[in-house]
Amino acid sequence: MATSIMRAVQIRAYDGKPESLSLVELAVPRPGPGQVLVRVSASPINPSDQMFLRGLYGFKKPLPAVPGFEGSGTVEEAGSGFMARFLKGRRVACAAVDPRSPQGMWAEYVVTSAQSCMPLSDHVTMEQGAMMLVNPLTAWALVDIARRGRHRAIVQTAAASALGKMVVKLGQKCSIPVINVVRRAEQVEALRAFGAEHVLNSSDDGFDSNLRKLCQDLSSTIGFDAVSGEMSGRVLRAQPDGSELIVYGALSLEANQIDPASLIFEGKRVNGFWLSEWLRHRSVLAQLKLGRQVQSLLADDLKTEVHTRLPLEKVASALEEYAANMTSGKILLVP
Amino acid sequence: MATSIMRAVQIRAYDGKPESLSLVELAVPRPGPGQVLVRVSASPINPSDQMFLRGLYGFKKPLPAVPGFEGSGTVEEAGSGFMARFLKGRRVACAAVDPRSPQGMWAEYVVTSAQSCMPLSDHVTMEQGAMMLVNPLTAWALVDIARRGRHRAIVQTAAASALGKMVVKLGQKCSIPVINVVRRAEQVEALRAFGAEHVLNSSDDGFDSNLRKLCQDLSSTIGFDAVSGEMSGRVLRAQPDGSELIVYGALSLEANQIDPASLIFEGKRVNGFWLSEWLRHRSVLAQLKLGRQVQSLLADDLKTEVHTRLPLEKVASALEEYAANMTSGKILLVP
Repeated sequence: MATSIMRAVQIRAYDGKPESLSLVELAVPRPGPGQVLVRVSASPINPSDQMFLRGLYGFKKPLPAVPGFEGSGTVEEAGSGFMARFLKGRRVACAAVDPRSPQGMWAEYVVTSAQSCMPLSDHVTMEQGAMMLVNPLTAWALVDIARRGRHRAIVQTAAASALGKMVVKLGQKCSIPVINVVRRAEQVEALRAFGAEHVLNSSDDGFDSNLRKLCQDLSSTIGFDAVSGEMSGRVLRAQPDGSELIVYGALSLEANQIDPASLIFEGKRVNGFWLSEWLRHRSVLAQLKLGRQVQSLLADDLKTEVHTRLPLEKVASALEEYAANMTSGKILLVP
Repeated sequence: MATSIMRAVQIRAYDGKPESLSLVELAVPRPGPGQVLVRVSASPINPSDQMFLRGLYGFKKPLPAVPGFEGSGTVEEAGSGFMARFLKGRRVACAAVDPRSPQGMWAEYVVTSAQSCMPLSDHVTMEQGAMMLVNPLTAWALVDIARRGRHRAIVQTAAASALGKMVVKLGQKCSIPVINVVRRAEQVEALRAFGAEHVLNSSDDGFDSNLRKLCQDLSSTIGFDAVSGEMSGRVLRAQPDGSELIVYGALSLEANQIDPASLIFEGKRVNGFWLSEWLRHRSVLAQLKLGRQVQSLLADDLKTEVHTRLPLEKVASALEEYAANMTSGKILLVP
């Protein structure tokens, strides 16, 4: 600890406006019992951060708060407790998702609970480690749900996203065909080049009937939807009778529009997925095992492309750039 | 069998227009193996008939077809088979829900499978018997789902409908509180007079927060929705975390608008209910037992009020009157 003052991004209102964010100087926080102080190496912008800034996430932290749900860094100080002391000096991936704490990853330092940290293996870089919790764990969890439910195929929206690509790779690994829905022609090309077999552009004529044919032929009885809005109902309508659509995002910022006939006459159902809740039902040991599995795949199947690295003071333009082009790689904030 | 010609309502297009319906003369059909010929006494107009006429039901029959999904009558002829012969001469409630058959209940005679008939007890009138399948069985099935799922309370939309009132009564019988949502002030009064304890008017200021408070206080983790449209999302938002909304109708004729946050962050889910499908998973014996249970309640908890009785030639005005005021009792077509 060389310093007692740190730079951090701060949010003052949940309105999603750039002027509600600023770079401020704060006292470096001190870890309490069971907590660690992490010097942050890198932290990405994820759709869940966008939702948080707009006040649309699953919780609101007391304001002012520091945004940034995940990142990587080095544990510099540890509070009491076995797990915290074990982590001291180690490189970790960590999350700042305590609804009551104003702490966040878009800062030079963060205090978080030791249980929100995962030690990084030597072969994992700080950059990949910074992006290993939200997307890789979600992709892993979703494909695991498909696998355990013995679904013969998956259909997913926002397939060109970082997370969508991971689902493509994990589907290949588990031999579960994935039907990928994107919105633009260049995403079709990019996803095909990436190795995806089934890619449909929702802006094309005949999309709905092509999607329906593919979903019926491959029997994609489970769907993963990050878009919401009318797309949810279009996918559900295309799926075979008895199918399930799992909504895990709302990139369209619109209500899911579901055809009542899909629910009533076709026995289809809609539910949601939230990583925090999914992890909460797993033991600490199961989470550590999961962390190791995910890290072993980070260099390949769960690799995330980095588009730009920007310092904290560029957070406003970083958010703008991310919103304008969400599928050409992640933007990392590097303190 | 005194005659070989019968009068019947016929639909020529699934457009919901009055001019696509007409009264025609058809040959009286003959029962095949396992079938019976029923001389129809009465048949109601239900929301499912409205959906069928608009082409929005779970199946379309080949056209031209006779509408009318349920009714009552006397079995005049029987084809081969034990069940068919057993029914000969008996008073029955029956359904005409074979997607491949143009037969329907809005006619002087109908041929249907013996399995679609339920013998009526002596104490059940032909009028009550005509309305014992669709609404009473659906209400019974829904409350049974709530009971088996050990839900502490129910919230329902379209609570002033014939079916909604049955859910009120069955909820009282099972000691499950029911939160009733209606659209008009006079329905609040009528439902209170009927004995309902919790009634909310969705047109009132503060409806959403009042509904939320009641749903949270009573823990109504299961909802039954016959309206669809934006009402589905409003009810789901009001329910406690982890709740389930079962859509069984679409009186609004609009897509269910679901808040993605309800699905993602609150662990809520939406599915559907279709009586045909629910019955299909029950054995013939279980269905007969169910029929006896429902008949024993027809005079009281599952009683349906009759608003008007009209002959077949008045079908167009009957449909119009029903659509204009769906909660003041059933309209029966009486051949």
